[in-house]
Amino acid sequence: MIINAPALQQRFIRLRENKFFETFVILVIVISAMVIGAKTYVIPATTQRVFEVLDLAITLFFLAEIIIRMIADRSLKRFFSQGWNVFDFIIVVASLIPFEDSETALLGRLLRIFRVLRLVSIIPELRVLMNAFVTAIPRMGYVSLLMFIIFYIYAAMGSIFFSQINPELWNNITISMLTLFRVATFEDWTDVMYETMAVYPLSWAFYLSFIFIVAFVFLNMMIGIVLETLQKEHEQFSRDSGEGEAGEVHRIEQRTREMEQRLIRMERMLEQMNKK
Amino acid sequence: MIINAPALQQRFIRLRENKFFETFVILVIVISAMVIGAKTYVIPATTQRVFEVLDLAITLFFLAEIIIRMIADRSLKRFFSQGWNVFDFIIVVASLIPFEDSETALLGRLLRIFRVLRLVSIIPELRVLMNAFVTAIPRMGYVSLLMFIIFYIYAAMGSIFFSQINPELWNNITISMLTLFRVATFEDWTDVMYETMAVYPLSWAFYLSFIFIVAFVFLNMMIGIVLETLQKEHEQFSRDSGEGEAGEVHRIEQRTREMEQRLIRMERMLEQMNKK
Amino acid sequence: MIINAPALQQRFIRLRENKFFETFVILVIVISAMVIGAKTYVIPATTQRVFEVLDLAITLFFLAEIIIRMIADRSLKRFFSQGWNVFDFIIVVASLIPFEDSETALLGRLLRIFRVLRLVSIIPELRVLMNAFVTAIPRMGYVSLLMFIIFYIYAAMGSIFFSQINPELWNNITISMLTLFRVATFEDWTDVMYETMAVYPLSWAFYLSFIFIVAFVFLNMMIGIVLETLQKEHEQFSRDSGEGEAGEVHRIEQRTREMEQRLIRMERMLEQMNKK
Amino acid sequence: MIINAPALQQRFIRLRENKFFETFVILVIVISAMVIGAKTYVIPATTQRVFEVLDLAITLFFLAEIIIRMIADRSLKRFFSQGWNVFDFIIVVASLIPFEDSETALLGRLLRIFRVLRLVSIIPELRVLMNAFVTAIPRMGYVSLLMFIIFYIYAAMGSIFFSQINPELWNNITISMLTLFRVATFEDWTDVMYETMAVYPLSWAFYLSFIFIVAFVFLNMMIGIVLETLQKEHEQFSRDSGEGEAGEVHRIEQRTREMEQRLIRMERMLEQMNKK
Repeated sequence: MIINAPALQQRFIRLRENKFFETFVILVIVISAMVIGAKTYVIPATTQRVFEVLDLAITLFFLAEIIIRMIADRSLKRFFSQGWNVFDFIIVVASLIPFEDSETALLGRLLRIFRVLRLVSIIPELRVLMNAFVTAIPRMGYVSLLMFIIFYIYAAMGSIFFSQINPELWNNITISMLTLFRVATFEDWTDVMYETMAVYPLSWAFYLSFIFIVAFVFLNMMIGIVLETLQKEHEQFSRDSGEGEAGEVHRIEQRTREMEQRLIRMERMLEQMNKK
Repeated sequence: MIINAPALQQRFIRLRENKFFETFVILVIVISAMVIGAKTYVIPATTQRVFEVLDLAITLFFLAEIIIRMIADRSLKRFFSQGWNVFDFIIVVASLIPFEDSETALLGRLLRIFRVLRLVSIIPELRVLMNAFVTAIPRMGYVSLLMFIIFYIYAAMGSIFFSQINPELWNNITISMLTLFRVATFEDWTDVMYETMAVYPLSWAFYLSFIFIVAFVFLNMMIGIVLETLQKEHEQFSRDSGEGEAGEVHRIEQRTREMEQRLIRMERMLEQMNKK
Repeated sequence: MIINAPALQQRFIRLRENKFFETFVILVIVISAMVIGAKTYVIPATTQRVFEVLDLAITLFFLAEIIIRMIADRSLKRFFSQGWNVFDFIIVVASLIPFEDSETALLGRLLRIFRVLRLVSIIPELRVLMNAFVTAIPRMGYVSLLMFIIFYIYAAMGSIFFSQINPELWNNITISMLTLFRVATFEDWTDVMYETMAVYPLSWAFYLSFIFIVAFVFLNMMIGIVLETLQKEHEQFSRDSGEGEAGEVHRIEQRTREMEQRLIRMERMLEQMNKK
Repeated sequence: MIINAPALQQRFIRLRENKFFETFVILVIVISAMVIGAKTYVIPATTQRVFEVLDLAITLFFLAEIIIRMIADRSLKRFFSQGWNVFDFIIVVASLIPFEDSETALLGRLLRIFRVLRLVSIIPELRVLMNAFVTAIPRMGYVSLLMFIIFYIYAAMGSIFFSQINPELWNNITISMLTLFRVATFEDWTDVMYETMAVYPLSWAFYLSFIFIVAFVFLNMMIGIVLETLQKEHEQFSRDSGEGEAGEVHRIEQRTREMEQRLIRMERMLEQMNKK
């Protein structure tokens, strides 16, 4: 049997991009998730059964689609070199693993939960959001490292000075970092401060400087990400279009240069003619 | 009787745009709202009576205006095809439903409250803000869906692992999602965390990763909305004006192209003349 | 006696712009404020005396400067038509009102406190910040009004449904609005919610929708202000400079139009010559 | 012995920029920090010993590098005129100070903690973040001063009116400012408010106006910093590149001016020829 993989793939893409089909799949996935979540409520057995069957149908649709895509790509290596293919493959395979409804095995229940990620596979707008998420990871990394250094230094100082006052909050650096994270989220931070101020009256400076620095790093992070995002968007736009204002200006610049050369030649000719 | 609807409508628009009239209407609506709100305080009966009459007068003014607008639009279908007309119509009709002052019927009191929305009808700046609100709903939708997926996965994990520890917070996915929303607002989230850390000492990773991801999605949401708003504003501006920098550059580009053609023709002529 | 007011004013401006003088005045004002604030601590009487004298000297300097400015402006009406002159005048006059150190009269102590506002008078950068603050008031107004409407509607609903549950939080609309402001700042909002959820299990929708709408309005407010600020900055820049990119493009546009006309005339001449 | 300092420095720079070397150094520093932090946990003595030796090796590498840099710069004055050299020098010298593992001397432990700052020395991206931090300090200064003035005025009013109600929170201006900072972080601020509202029922206006003003100043600060950062980035870009759109437009502007002059001359010549 010969399978015309690219043609079949086109069909699947058309079906996927169909708004009604998309809406139907989203509804089934969301309601299936609700049904899992509502385990403890009383739901008519038939309703639950219907959604289980529909859920299985969608999983099989995903399975068929991903197999067609793998055949169309010809080489498995090429297929798995793209992050989204790996993501879709894992989600589909995980959705296929069988489990009994009555069993409470941890893995089975966790796998059921992660099925909701198929929503990201089916909705293009969520893919765009996820892409933004993934491309931002490296720049988030360095800011997180700087935050870690600031937290580490303050946590170390905290565990040296305050561990005698309240070992539960400042016993070692790990616990102190958790306490500082709590301070950074403003969660009952004054209770932590008043406790240490009873022993070190000037320890408010420790907390206030920490809050200022962390807030400032956070602000810089935001601005840095916004600026980088804006710059990348702009570059992408000018590279893709080539027709924006910047492109027009570039063409005008080249054209006026040629016009100037032509005018110089013409003026010389006119001068010669005038001399005759 | 022939009503010159468009002319009358013009008059109403002029009256509405009159700053003194606008200020007067705003004051009456705000004070009427205050009077309703201040039910429990002792307010002179005459003052209350005056504002009730003024409030009725404004409702009648709105009613007259909306009837004129309906007549001017000729077809009811065309009139109700615009969202703002529907909004104004509902507000006016709801304001007209009679109710006794002494009755405590729920609907009557609720309708009185929603009368304050007439402020949005009368103040153009609030309409602009509401428009921004409405146009942002679709892009908010996808971000909300991604947030829902994140909340759902964390809530499902939470209800699996922590439901034994504190059923009030983690009994099922719905309650777990509410608990996670509480964590996302930093409201006594350390109490929730310390409770589960007593059983699972590493559960801090659950809370910290959740806070980081939610904060990150929120940041992306903000940036995404700001970027989209900026882009739409920019597009609208260049489409509406046609006179901005981009428009000028485009005209220069076309003009220099024509000038080049002309120069080429002229140089050829000069060359021919020179040969003679 | 003839006073050369403009010349004297120039001298005062030069003295004010002197960095050492500015730093000295800032230090004296800040330390004076500290001395007032530190009333309850033991401070050597001589130190306190020195700063009181220096504070008086600065007040007299401000007084002299403002009198010179009034004379230079010639008409009092013109002088008081500028907001900053009014601000400076009130601060100086309020600083001059005598009061005994030992008296605890409220007004005297309050006046002493507001003396710290002289810092805004002397530091140009703070004036810029204050100007930004004042120009943003109108646009803040409409957003505040929309927030008020949202708060009002939710507060009215809250006082209708929840006043029986906890009169302290929901007795009337005013108290309900304060409670909702507390919810908007995430301050122990879950305590408020759990209390009403005991009676109305679905009341979490009331709180969550409120938090989403308020957060969204706040976001729109931020974006709106950023956009308007950016636009105004940009307009101001292009109006003031006339030399930016936009200005150059405009000049090129006009010049190429003229060049085209000239080329059309020249081509015609060449054609005529060619025909001869 | 003659040292070819610049050549050696080049080698060090190459070694530093080597990705594997950088990753190795980062890992050793982070793990060393972890080992210090994990003092209280049971760690195999050999593991601890290995990381102590590696940590010493890195310190010696930093020492060698900084000595080479000092020799290459020739003059010590020139070397220490750059902030980063001073920073690196202090970190290296502080890392070299010997201390016994068993001693609990405060200085020794603090110095060990600050060793983690060597990460900032070795990772260029963190240097960029630190530079952004340092250049933002002056503009942060004025906003902080304005915040101080606002806090001071509110704190003074608070200590006058509320010191009788709760001396622990409002006894003097310093304590009142700390209480207001707590209110600004929304940390149990309603408890503070309800306490004073029992005596002054209108004191909610004090807290709400304070929260609004502080939030507003903070917003302005953010916008101000974003705008300034954007402007500086833009200026830097156009100064460094000279090839952007703005540069092209400038060149076009100059070229069209010359072309116009040439066309005027040519038209005159043509007119003279035509007259002949």
